[in-house]
Amino acid sequence: MAQLRQLHLGAFLRPTTIHTGAWRYPGAFPDANFNFAHLKRFAQTLERGRFDAFFMADHLAVLNMPVEALKRSHTATSFDPLTLLPALATATERLGLIATASTTFEQPYLVARRFASLDHLSGGRAGWNIVTTSNPDAALNFGLEEHMEHDERYRRGREFFDVVTGLWDSWADDAFLRDTQSGVFFDPDKLHVLNHKGPYFSVRGPLNIARPIQGWPVIVQAGASEAGRQLAAETAEVIFGATSSIEEGRRFYADIKARMAKLGRAPDSLKILPGAFVVIGRTEEEAQEKRARLDSLVHAESGIASLSIALGHDASLFDPDAPLPEIPQTNDSQSGRERVLRLAAREGLTVRQLAQRLGGYAGLAMVGTPRAIADQMEEWLTTEASDGFNVMFSHVPDGIDEFVDLVVPELQRRGIFRRDYAGSTLRDHLGLKRPENRFFRDAVTA
Amino acid sequence: MAQLRQLHLGAFLRPTTIHTGAWRYPGAFPDANFNFAHLKRFAQTLERGRFDAFFMADHLAVLNMPVEALKRSHTATSFDPLTLLPALATATERLGLIATASTTFEQPYLVARRFASLDHLSGGRAGWNIVTTSNPDAALNFGLEEHMEHDERYRRGREFFDVVTGLWDSWADDAFLRDTQSGVFFDPDKLHVLNHKGPYFSVRGPLNIARPIQGWPVIVQAGASEAGRQLAAETAEVIFGATSSIEEGRRFYADIKARMAKLGRAPDSLKILPGAFVVIGRTEEEAQEKRARLDSLVHAESGIASLSIALGHDASLFDPDAPLPEIPQTNDSQSGRERVLRLAAREGLTVRQLAQRLGGYAGLAMVGTPRAIADQMEEWLTTEASDGFNVMFSHVPDGIDEFVDLVVPELQRRGIFRRDYAGSTLRDHLGLKRPENRFFRDAVTA
Ligand SMILES: Cc1cc2nc3c(=O)[nH]c(=O)nc-3n(C[C@H](O)[C@H](O)[C@H](O)COP(=O)(O)O)c2cc1C
Ligand SMILES: Cc1cc2nc3c(=O)[nH]c(=O)nc-3n(C[C@H](O)[C@H](O)[C@H](O)COP(=O)(O)O)c2cc1C
Repeated sequence: MAQLRQLHLGAFLRPTTIHTGAWRYPGAFPDANFNFAHLKRFAQTLERGRFDAFFMADHLAVLNMPVEALKRSHTATSFDPLTLLPALATATERLGLIATASTTFEQPYLVARRFASLDHLSGGRAGWNIVTTSNPDAALNFGLEEHMEHDERYRRGREFFDVVTGLWDSWADDAFLRDTQSGVFFDPDKLHVLNHKGPYFSVRGPLNIARPIQGWPVIVQAGASEAGRQLAAETAEVIFGATSSIEEGRRFYADIKARMAKLGRAPDSLKILPGAFVVIGRTEEEAQEKRARLDSLVHAESGIASLSIALGHDASLFDPDAPLPEIPQTNDSQSGRERVLRLAAREGLTVRQLAQRLGGYAGLAMVGTPRAIADQMEEWLTTEASDGFNVMFSHVPDGIDEFVDLVVPELQRRGIFRRDYAGSTLRDHLGLKRPENRFFRDAVTA
Repeated sequence: MAQLRQLHLGAFLRPTTIHTGAWRYPGAFPDANFNFAHLKRFAQTLERGRFDAFFMADHLAVLNMPVEALKRSHTATSFDPLTLLPALATATERLGLIATASTTFEQPYLVARRFASLDHLSGGRAGWNIVTTSNPDAALNFGLEEHMEHDERYRRGREFFDVVTGLWDSWADDAFLRDTQSGVFFDPDKLHVLNHKGPYFSVRGPLNIARPIQGWPVIVQAGASEAGRQLAAETAEVIFGATSSIEEGRRFYADIKARMAKLGRAPDSLKILPGAFVVIGRTEEEAQEKRARLDSLVHAESGIASLSIALGHDASLFDPDAPLPEIPQTNDSQSGRERVLRLAAREGLTVRQLAQRLGGYAGLAMVGTPRAIADQMEEWLTTEASDGFNVMFSHVPDGIDEFVDLVVPELQRRGIFRRDYAGSTLRDHLGLKRPENRFFRDAVTA
């Protein structure tokens, strides 16, 4: 029997969950974003659940919302991803480790070296989530009065990628002889000096670390704009999408795979994993109650602020316990506004509930029994709306434990998710080839 | 009985030993610079030996010597220090972890966050070796055609330090309430926005991570120039010196402590630890033989190149097996030349041996029995030539094992080195105070 199409699962952590009410949920670890013992436990649970990777988001500023809202959020602070993941590497054996690093505010030589170091330390489990950093507050921490313009960020990002991957190829796999007899440590013919000179960067090279175990750490992208999609189609091996319905998922999937075809890339050399917020209950009702409870922990005023932005209208004037009234059309963001109106109608939410949903997490959510969640995941997978998911947990630790103990076995029973890791590297888990060295024929090629 | 003055010991690793012949020594691990299992073992041995810290040097380029010499050196590649040390943090419990980071090529926001992350992950064991990076090849990897001028590097370094320490003070120690009842995660009154604007950096802040456990990670400096000494006297808590004799050590010690007195700093708020290359034998002869053998593993031509530079004269023209002939005076580096002539006369070395010494390691060395080495260390300590040493091991693992098993017990017997750690942080080991937060009165002050 041919093997069924396989689901890939990342765990989206920041380093905890994205829902701003989650730290207040009964039984949650309120300090999880900042407690290594907890994070180690999460990583080990994810490995037991055979996840492809632990994915660590990153934001280079605190003040990305007004302080009155921020003070209620556990996402205000976190570890640096490339400092946390090496520590988690020693606590796990197979789990992939994906860190976010910005092409707008970092230096390619340092990024290349750090990911190569993580890849070596972890036995080939590193991935790089390339972001151009959309938060304008980050610019203020890096000497810029204004954020670099969007398309320029992407041009710089593209050149950054070329430099980093060129540096990873500095050494042939068999460059290091370490011949104690002759006293030759490496073969100079197997060392390539990059000599990159471009509009944004001049980097001589070579990198002062051997080629990563995976050749290159896995290249991940999360950009949603035209420029972001194009960069992903050209360079990414994983996309973390933000599609919020299965129809949108299929359109995005088809769009990316069509761009790849034009570029001559094999469609399965890139996996599309939309973010999915998961709330698990023993019954449908229990799951819905859990979600309602989670949303109710979002501070109402913070939620109203989010709702006002989405509507282009001051929502604090509405009765919080009534349904959303008719609002006159404005010139502000139409698509955001309509999404909110549809959501309110579909779920029959009051103004307060709607506000708390937006302040918590309003993207793609799978709320239900383990079977119902597995059904949805299977449908996305089999109808080419995705190659898997980047799972966002409702709260920690329970959200992770429940997913691993209840949803994963259901996926395994259906034959669409691994029962054990087949290989040892993140590329192995994702079914991705080891890239060839552009300057040397590899001694060993996967 | 009053306690005797205590020795402090760092282990200088890169991440292995500095001697370019060491990887060829019988029993050495040739791949130690790049094998995490080995490095973990070294760190654990150092912790068993109650070392204050593991110190990781760093160089932001490969090509700091001609490739014909470089190809014989195990220092050509290594892990990124801030990726390696978090992994070593999980393998140890008390050992301090000092990483080098450059003020010339890095960004203060990222450096502040990474060291704060390491400090939290390790339970307060991080230190930052501030370097301005003297290797001009590094500039070519960071978009600069020419290296930044020396004094400008130091001006930038000083401002970089101010920004990083200001960012570390972004949060009061008791800022994080995590009050699940009220839903307030942190107290906005305990958050300080730096708003730094200076000639080199504009950084708004705040840092997106809590204040480090140690307040600030320990500040380490290794600059030797006038500007370097002054920066150290103003800011450093540890200096890794390069003094090559006890007299020079005493002069350097007195110079730094006098600079500190002028600045109103308490003399014991800074520890001076010169690098000391240690070769241990059961007898004096065995130690001398070991060193000669180690030097003989340095490729003669690489050594001759180093000797030629030191003499300002082509040393390949001399008979390698004869003593150094008379050489006419030149205008090149007088002090380096005289040091070499004195060394050749003192030890009666042939041209080849002298060349191999320079190609290996020609700075301060302690070669002898464990007792003789302890005698020297004690003399440096008691005559205020240093507060301890940054030990460079002859080769690994044996050099580390021998130091911990033979020299450390001898120092302990004399009452000048701890038998166990008294505290848990690197500041505790070094007897350094936790810096006060410049923006908030600390809730807990050491
Ligand atoms: C699932 C997901 C995760 C993301 N993680 C990060 C992140 O960690 N850091 C960041 O700066 N941006 C992150 N982004 C933002 C994207 O990189 C990107 O800036 C955003 O989707 C807007 O797309 P555009 O820049 O192409 O317009 C993420 C986006 C998605 C959908
Ligand atoms: C023990 C010791 C360790 C050092 N480690 C480093 C290092 O890891 N990286 C680096 O760039 N420079 C290192 N240096 C060089 C110093 O930071 C400094 O650049 C050098 O001593 C020259 O001093 P100056 O820059 O004040 O002229 C080290 C120096 C000493 C003495």
